[in-house]
Amino acid sequence: MKQLKQYIDTSRQRFIDELVDYLRFPSVSAQSAHKKDMTDCARWLADHTKSLGLKSRVYRTAGHPIVTAATPRTRNSTKPHFLVYGHYDVQPPEPLELWDSPPFEPTLRGGNLYARGASDNKGQHFAHLKAVEAYLKTGTELPCDLTFVVEGEEEVGGEALVKFLKQNKCDLKCDGVVVSDTGMPDLKHPALTYALRGVAALEVRLDGPDRDLHSGIYGGSVKNPGMALSQLLGGMIDNNGRITVPGFYDDVAKLTAYERRQLARVPYSEAKYKKLLGVKSLFGEKGFTANEQRGARPTFEINGLTSGYQGEGSKTIVPCSASAKITMRLVPNQDAAKILRLVACHLKALCPPTMRMTVDLGHVADPYVVSPTGPLAKAALDSLKAAFGHNPVLLREGGSIPIVEHFARILKVDTYLLGLALPDDNLHSPNEKIDLEAFTRGIWMSANLWTNLAKA
Amino acid sequence: MKQLKQYIDTSRQRFIDELVDYLRFPSVSAQSAHKKDMTDCARWLADHTKSLGLKSRVYRTAGHPIVTAATPRTRNSTKPHFLVYGHYDVQPPEPLELWDSPPFEPTLRGGNLYARGASDNKGQHFAHLKAVEAYLKTGTELPCDLTFVVEGEEEVGGEALVKFLKQNKCDLKCDGVVVSDTGMPDLKHPALTYALRGVAALEVRLDGPDRDLHSGIYGGSVKNPGMALSQLLGGMIDNNGRITVPGFYDDVAKLTAYERRQLARVPYSEAKYKKLLGVKSLFGEKGFTANEQRGARPTFEINGLTSGYQGEGSKTIVPCSASAKITMRLVPNQDAAKILRLVACHLKALCPPTMRMTVDLGHVADPYVVSPTGPLAKAALDSLKAAFGHNPVLLREGGSIPIVEHFARILKVDTYLLGLALPDDNLHSPNEKIDLEAFTRGIWMSANLWTNLAKA
Repeated sequence: MKQLKQYIDTSRQRFIDELVDYLRFPSVSAQSAHKKDMTDCARWLADHTKSLGLKSRVYRTAGHPIVTAATPRTRNSTKPHFLVYGHYDVQPPEPLELWDSPPFEPTLRGGNLYARGASDNKGQHFAHLKAVEAYLKTGTELPCDLTFVVEGEEEVGGEALVKFLKQNKCDLKCDGVVVSDTGMPDLKHPALTYALRGVAALEVRLDGPDRDLHSGIYGGSVKNPGMALSQLLGGMIDNNGRITVPGFYDDVAKLTAYERRQLARVPYSEAKYKKLLGVKSLFGEKGFTANEQRGARPTFEINGLTSGYQGEGSKTIVPCSASAKITMRLVPNQDAAKILRLVACHLKALCPPTMRMTVDLGHVADPYVVSPTGPLAKAALDSLKAAFGHNPVLLREGGSIPIVEHFARILKVDTYLLGLALPDDNLHSPNEKIDLEAFTRGIWMSANLWTNLAKA
Repeated sequence: MKQLKQYIDTSRQRFIDELVDYLRFPSVSAQSAHKKDMTDCARWLADHTKSLGLKSRVYRTAGHPIVTAATPRTRNSTKPHFLVYGHYDVQPPEPLELWDSPPFEPTLRGGNLYARGASDNKGQHFAHLKAVEAYLKTGTELPCDLTFVVEGEEEVGGEALVKFLKQNKCDLKCDGVVVSDTGMPDLKHPALTYALRGVAALEVRLDGPDRDLHSGIYGGSVKNPGMALSQLLGGMIDNNGRITVPGFYDDVAKLTAYERRQLARVPYSEAKYKKLLGVKSLFGEKGFTANEQRGARPTFEINGLTSGYQGEGSKTIVPCSASAKITMRLVPNQDAAKILRLVACHLKALCPPTMRMTVDLGHVADPYVVSPTGPLAKAALDSLKAAFGHNPVLLREGGSIPIVEHFARILKVDTYLLGLALPDDNLHSPNEKIDLEAFTRGIWMSANLWTNLAKA
């Protein structure tokens, strides 16, 4: 490991220079004008990994190509096999006028490298690649077989990866997936994200009269759909922030005392959090901290309300209908499809006799959790600690990360999320950057990881 | 009266022919292309009334002219003085393709005269004019002094009438106003409309976070404005259809047993009413019939709801705000401005601590009622009975009629609404028509009215 450390330390500037080369590609997957930049970027990555001694390939897809790079391995290798996932596509850089330096001319300022894609996600998976380079170039035997899978459609929710995983299920058979595409609170709190919330979407619509009615002539003798919807939805959450759908919490996994202690270690200031959200005060399910509420507890969220007249001034009508877009965030071990049916059923049971109700079921994604005390998780935590010099924290992510679900569903493996992004990295915003200390410590974390995972 | 009846009977065809002439004017106040048609129509009416022996005048206004026509009177007349209000402007006729005969080529079919403005309102005030003609042409002394006030901005809510009433307050000093611009259930149920609901409008808005938030990252720790609004509004009406604002019903005049008996006489079929509204079932304040609910009880109506994402598909956000447009229908003796303050205060008191609330107060109109048992109302009812041969019903109108408020406020007099329109007259719709029996019986009703009012 000493040799590896020395290689990484002495190569630091070259690693940054190479990342700069990688970041120069305007690989914006959403914009068709950048189609050639996408293939150029994929080709560059394949050539670069090949130059390090990996076996690289560029897979053509219906959309943007996928690059794979496998470490050298024997035919009947008994080493554990891990995938390292990343994406070379980036968010559109617009609005350009808000950037302090051009998004595709990577610029160093105050220990940060500014460029679109620096943190999301080129810099993060490049760190893993540089750790592998250290093994290969110092002649240190890699204790694991690794396959990098770097896609080009993450930012556009493309279907290429899913198809690719299905078609290459055999070659991709592995013991786990490592992804650095999440974040950590700060350099003193490196983090393993071990749980994600799922999601279930639906739209509910109430139809009353067959047209908007004159509120003077008819109002008072007919139920107002806007009122009916308000009463229906208003009852879905009680004063304690609990969702009132019977059975909704039946499958919710309770946080262990250990998990609650770990979540409590995540730096948090209520004043700063309120300021970040721009709210007067917070509100959530009683008995849980804000971090628990948004990471480990399910929600019932109104995303949109529509009824009647929404233009200027007033219009004296009883609107003919009212509708709401709803999404629920779900937590382990809720089953998204089951919850969706449960809620739709409950809504229908509450439909007032004066209304016709339509419930349109939307997309679902199951929640995800990997044991934070399992041997692989422990190996990950040890690697973070070794690289950052601080006890890592355990995070739960409130949103969904589709790739994690794909890996679980198609390859039947767990994903370890070892994010290197800092909260001020401006992901998806102007002046995106990567902290170069996070980058270099990330390389060292990765170097440790393969050794620790192999031992686990 | 015999002479009058004979004159009216023998003149029937000529009256219809003259009404046809009047209806040929495309006096569409909303469309500037018809500006000249408006002045031509006003001029025709002034000339016609002058030819009958009335003293006519066309008042220029900032908008469309107002025509007045006064019956001959002595300098110090001690006769009671009544205004007869009408409007010569009509709704736009579009969509033209839905008319069975051109809107401004009056056409007779099955006892009805089809034309835009036939019932709303040329035919109705023309009936009063023909009754006056009968008095004048038969040399029968008119027992009242009458002044016709026929405006040209009723359909566009113009300000000309209000200004005119204020400027001519002295000349228009009178004992009451007679208006035929409402309806009756059918020819067997002639009607006096004796009460109108008022209105009070407001808009309430809840602001939560200072932008739409990611429902995964933050959802669960922050109150959803759409949910907060649903809970706020959903509580404003209870399961019995009662508005829950404390003090809301304090000033509501109770229906007398006589009024309830009279309202019960209005033809009503629940099945037909449900079909008309296109609802599965009705809903209103418990303890009141549908006619009472929409005529004599106040409402709290959501006219529009707005929050978050309303486009296609789903968007996983906690919206930053939610708002609702509200109008309340008010009944005698509620004070619209007082109720508006009361409700705004109540909403503000219920604002959750997590939200900032904005309440924008909108327009108000006070409710109106004239005693249905007073001597003038009795005279009106007697005239209806004499002309239609059936006991008239007493109606309460659920909407507001601004002119009634203007007459009450500026001239300090009551208005008697003796509507001749039938439910199938297609007011504001293609194929508007007037029933010629309603028209001719209306003339006879008017002839009786002046005698009965003078005696009252």
